[in-house]
Amino acid sequence: MKLLRYGPKGQEKPGLMDATGTIRDLSGIVSDITPDVLSPAGLAKIAAIDPASLPAVEGSPRYGVPINGVRKFIAVGLNFADHAAESNLPIPTEPVLFTKAISCLTGPNDPVMIPKGSEKTDWEVELGIVIGSRARYVSEENALDHVAGYVLINDVSERAFQIERGGTWDKGKGCDTFGPVGPWVVTSDEVGDPQNLSMWLEVNGHRYQNGSSKTMIFTCRQLVAYISQFITLEPGDLITTGTPPGVGLGQKPEPKYLKAGDVIRLGIEKLGEQRQDVVAWTQEGVA
Amino acid sequence: MKLLRYGPKGQEKPGLMDATGTIRDLSGIVSDITPDVLSPAGLAKIAAIDPASLPAVEGSPRYGVPINGVRKFIAVGLNFADHAAESNLPIPTEPVLFTKAISCLTGPNDPVMIPKGSEKTDWEVELGIVIGSRARYVSEENALDHVAGYVLINDVSERAFQIERGGTWDKGKGCDTFGPVGPWVVTSDEVGDPQNLSMWLEVNGHRYQNGSSKTMIFTCRQLVAYISQFITLEPGDLITTGTPPGVGLGQKPEPKYLKAGDVIRLGIEKLGEQRQDVVAWTQEGVA
Repeated sequence: MKLLRYGPKGQEKPGLMDATGTIRDLSGIVSDITPDVLSPAGLAKIAAIDPASLPAVEGSPRYGVPINGVRKFIAVGLNFADHAAESNLPIPTEPVLFTKAISCLTGPNDPVMIPKGSEKTDWEVELGIVIGSRARYVSEENALDHVAGYVLINDVSERAFQIERGGTWDKGKGCDTFGPVGPWVVTSDEVGDPQNLSMWLEVNGHRYQNGSSKTMIFTCRQLVAYISQFITLEPGDLITTGTPPGVGLGQKPEPKYLKAGDVIRLGIEKLGEQRQDVVAWTQEGVA
Repeated sequence: MKLLRYGPKGQEKPGLMDATGTIRDLSGIVSDITPDVLSPAGLAKIAAIDPASLPAVEGSPRYGVPINGVRKFIAVGLNFADHAAESNLPIPTEPVLFTKAISCLTGPNDPVMIPKGSEKTDWEVELGIVIGSRARYVSEENALDHVAGYVLINDVSERAFQIERGGTWDKGKGCDTFGPVGPWVVTSDEVGDPQNLSMWLEVNGHRYQNGSSKTMIFTCRQLVAYISQFITLEPGDLITTGTPPGVGLGQKPEPKYLKAGDVIRLGIEKLGEQRQDVVAWTQEGVA
């Protein structure tokens, strides 16, 4: 199943994408795609419905963040050996964790805003894990039982804020609009093996990232088990699992960063695509 | 005003502590102490009520986390020069930020659980800032207008997870029970100057920390303004502002860490006190 939220910002309704590519309205079944809808019982309830029995949604509405009520947005750094190399950082011996502020969450096709004073805003196509049931000290063997599904994420990053301003990476990872998520949460049964998905990202039509979840250093299974030894994962929590090579920071002969007017497109096999217009900073932010 | 939540875990009711030390039940006025209750309008509504007109609560109920619906729990590291020194780390030239997972939040007198495999669980008495209105690119001049009040926090930390496991500090800061908060959110008007509050922490009756918010490197005003340049702060968000010297890591001739059976007591002038029993790890966690 592909679960989604559609409609204007702040007024999204729950829906699912059926096999023909039509959005079906789920608002007669659930009030929203909340963490409890992502639980095994919540997903089973929706899976039992014939999508054809749900109202078809007309037109091409905006997609919102496909979960309402994300509590934690945990990120894994340097999880592709080639990306660690392009960042001039050693290959980690255990997962590197940091946090994206949940106020950065935004719809998959909403604008990405360059922060005030930023000169190094960068892109990162990433596979996101959506937690479906509480995971606390879980084994690798059982870890994927706690996963509701997967989602496409652009882990937008400001490299100067992240690396040159002291302390941890969080300063460069949680700016407004730095977390485009969606269009859909694709349930685990439909994704199958999460370690065999191609992933790509283009800026202005030039392909910068072209990778596969096959080359992740730590797999989704390992990451859920690992993180759960430190932080209890709850339904609706997101884990973004790191990016393959090809970010702006790693371009030769010199880094290349985003500027207003750029268009980012990215996708992961089975998880859909995103498209973002890059816009300049304003005091008011983006609507 | 002192706003609080009382009652068994998961069933807390909203209340306030009146001038005589009696808890008054606010559940006829607001359904809970949610982020919107901490907004200027929400606080004004409660301030207009005569506490004596509210039902008095009998007995000595448990205190819960005094806010239901914290979205972000942002932490400042090394914000006291002497603590940076005891940690063998340089005095930061701008604030060091990291994140505590909100799943670590717990009542002020609930047990603190040593995580599985931990040998270096440590204490940190800290002054917490509670955000009352959205803060995005705010100036130092206006920063405190966005603060609803202040709260006592024990920023419990696992030093090996924090420092020796690679990546950022978040692994050692967000374990279950690592965020005792409360007993009350004390509103800004009642606190007055947040930079002149004595703060202390004892383990088993021995005083390890004895400081004052006077010696913070970056003030509350500076921190709110600074963080808002990177991360938009929202009502109910918590900022914990760093600890004075005297943590376990800094003890001589060798560090001293928490063990099951220890009792932690801590307090900040005007913000009340906390008391935690330290308990051993169990698979089930603490109730």
